[in-house]
Amino acid sequence: MSAWVLPDHIADVLPSEARHIEELRRELLDTARAYGYELVMPPLLEHLESLLTGTGEALDLQTFKLVDQLSGRMMGLRADTTPQVARIDAHLLNRQGVARLCYCGPVLHTRPDRPHATREPLQFGAEIYGHAGLEADLEILHLALDCLRATQVRGLTVDMGDARIVRALLADVALAPGRLGPLHAALAAKDASELALLSQDFPKTAREGLLALVTLYGDASVLNEAEKVLPANPAIRQALAQLKRLAAEVGDGRVSFDLADLRGYAYYSGARFAIYAQGASDALVRGGRYDEVGAVFGRNRPAVGFSLVDIKQVVGVVGPRPLRAAIRAPWGDAADLRAAIAELRRQGETVVCVLPGHESEIEEFHCDRVLQQAAGQWTVQVI
Amino acid sequence: MSAWVLPDHIADVLPSEARHIEELRRELLDTARAYGYELVMPPLLEHLESLLTGTGEALDLQTFKLVDQLSGRMMGLRADTTPQVARIDAHLLNRQGVARLCYCGPVLHTRPDRPHATREPLQFGAEIYGHAGLEADLEILHLALDCLRATQVRGLTVDMGDARIVRALLADVALAPGRLGPLHAALAAKDASELALLSQDFPKTAREGLLALVTLYGDASVLNEAEKVLPANPAIRQALAQLKRLAAEVGDGRVSFDLADLRGYAYYSGARFAIYAQGASDALVRGGRYDEVGAVFGRNRPAVGFSLVDIKQVVGVVGPRPLRAAIRAPWGDAADLRAAIAELRRQGETVVCVLPGHESEIEEFHCDRVLQQAAGQWTVQVI
Repeated sequence: MSAWVLPDHIADVLPSEARHIEELRRELLDTARAYGYELVMPPLLEHLESLLTGTGEALDLQTFKLVDQLSGRMMGLRADTTPQVARIDAHLLNRQGVARLCYCGPVLHTRPDRPHATREPLQFGAEIYGHAGLEADLEILHLALDCLRATQVRGLTVDMGDARIVRALLADVALAPGRLGPLHAALAAKDASELALLSQDFPKTAREGLLALVTLYGDASVLNEAEKVLPANPAIRQALAQLKRLAAEVGDGRVSFDLADLRGYAYYSGARFAIYAQGASDALVRGGRYDEVGAVFGRNRPAVGFSLVDIKQVVGVVGPRPLRAAIRAPWGDAADLRAAIAELRRQGETVVCVLPGHESEIEEFHCDRVLQQAAGQWTVQVI
Repeated sequence: MSAWVLPDHIADVLPSEARHIEELRRELLDTARAYGYELVMPPLLEHLESLLTGTGEALDLQTFKLVDQLSGRMMGLRADTTPQVARIDAHLLNRQGVARLCYCGPVLHTRPDRPHATREPLQFGAEIYGHAGLEADLEILHLALDCLRATQVRGLTVDMGDARIVRALLADVALAPGRLGPLHAALAAKDASELALLSQDFPKTAREGLLALVTLYGDASVLNEAEKVLPANPAIRQALAQLKRLAAEVGDGRVSFDLADLRGYAYYSGARFAIYAQGASDALVRGGRYDEVGAVFGRNRPAVGFSLVDIKQVVGVVGPRPLRAAIRAPWGDAADLRAAIAELRRQGETVVCVLPGHESEIEEFHCDRVLQQAAGQWTVQVI
């Protein structure tokens, strides 16, 4: 095996793509900052129990584990940043009021999420802590859409659901712990026969409600239909009303609903959304309310947020950007040449000095101008 | 043990520091870009043998190891980015001419480098491949200094040495592999008696040369002294002449030399430098020539580069930056209010919407203005 072969689903990012990712990164962080979200940088490594407490089995399986030589304890490489940000809100900031936080950094997965996914996504996200009202959900949804617009992703559509609906239907059902997973899977797969089997000993309202859910996906009419067929439970009514309000913000024809789908939303407790784009097979963004995520850190604050699953994936969706043009300059140590180059660089130009012996090489940068001496002055000439 | 306690030498970066790090990150990348360095992003995880081939024992001990579930092979978390960039130059770009590359990302260390160091430094660096001449060394030294100036680090001093001097002195010595390490350590510690012991069976020229080295540190006079006391070997003459030329670029009073010190330069093959700043106990930047670093990837190209060991460390040296001011706005869904907020954000302002019920909270942002309605218009008022 050659020393330069990378592990499967791990890749180098080469210059043209890396430049694009860096630009997207800045646009995303600047958008969050314009909304008043403060950047935090949680570590890549933590004690395993901090990373995994309360997050569910899926994240556990996705998390690389290693031993800390300093303490002998197990550590994990973060596979998701949201639980870390909840920990920061709960313990480090410990603010009484609203905290708006954002983050951007790599996460690592033991296995790829999808057939062609990387195991090292670059995750970006924003979260708002301390406000239980729908205003926070609305702000997060707007910010997520604005972030994607800033990256020039086209053809956005939003899919919505609410974790409270299934939870309300199961509220009166005594369910053994191991039975919830298969139930969620059957709901997500819209497998009515499996669901009928799994819910055969449930009370009639719960059973009928769950079976109704598998048909409740599609456009805005789904919400009206849900009001008719689901039980008149206050939690369900509230969830449906809030989904209607959130959907109104996105606009007609761009929202769909799937009231059965809870996949990838292990710690969500309220309205949830996923944003899709033309040309992307999977959701670019997942978000929603997860009021209970900070509880394991001893501070159960209201929380809403979203994460952009992988900035690298966005590059593939929006296509390459044109290269910014650069200036070729001769190599030399004359003071006037150096001053001319330094001044151009100060103005934001890229100036590539041609090293002696390499005059005939093609620059990787698109050099459309050249710095040359004319009448004793260094001037920029268009090539 | 509480779920929110982090491992030793691992820390969260909270908002004011995170913002500063992000600003430094951009300034460093923009400086490298102005010089024509292309950004690459090597992965955090690689097969262990790719990460460690040819890099020496120190890096091996610093590298976290884990098993790849997909392949059953050992992987490592990068503890240094330079060998990865050499691999990219050798195999992915495979250019015949000059390649200028830069990178910025976290590295992970099993143990801290220094008593108060983090185990997750944020490393930045730039490298130039394919040019053996001193011009490349000069460009890298200039770029390193410009990068630190961009971060507003004050009181820079540069310490220089050259790996060729010790190597030339040992050229005719038959040395068992395990004996080089103790020799380097005695040189770095300037331990003449230990060195005399270790070199007692060496030829006279080598032995005397090595013993002379431990006194060759200090200001520019060191180079003249070295010319007198070291053997008149062409490699040593060239190294001293190039050090003189490099030092001339930095300017008087800001350069020191240490011809014995090879610590932290395992793969260096020529001139090397370390840049120190007022208020920093350790070097902020280490760089130099490492022509052999790509050899293990089958392509032994000339290479010079530097790395800024930890951007987080720079924040501590330059002190906090003032917070950019923000604008407070009321929460509301009126179209004119939303348009006014969107326009301010488009102009680069931070606009923090006060969520209902949180009107009396102090914003973490420094809000010096407020958006309010006057005569039917939304206008920004100074508080």
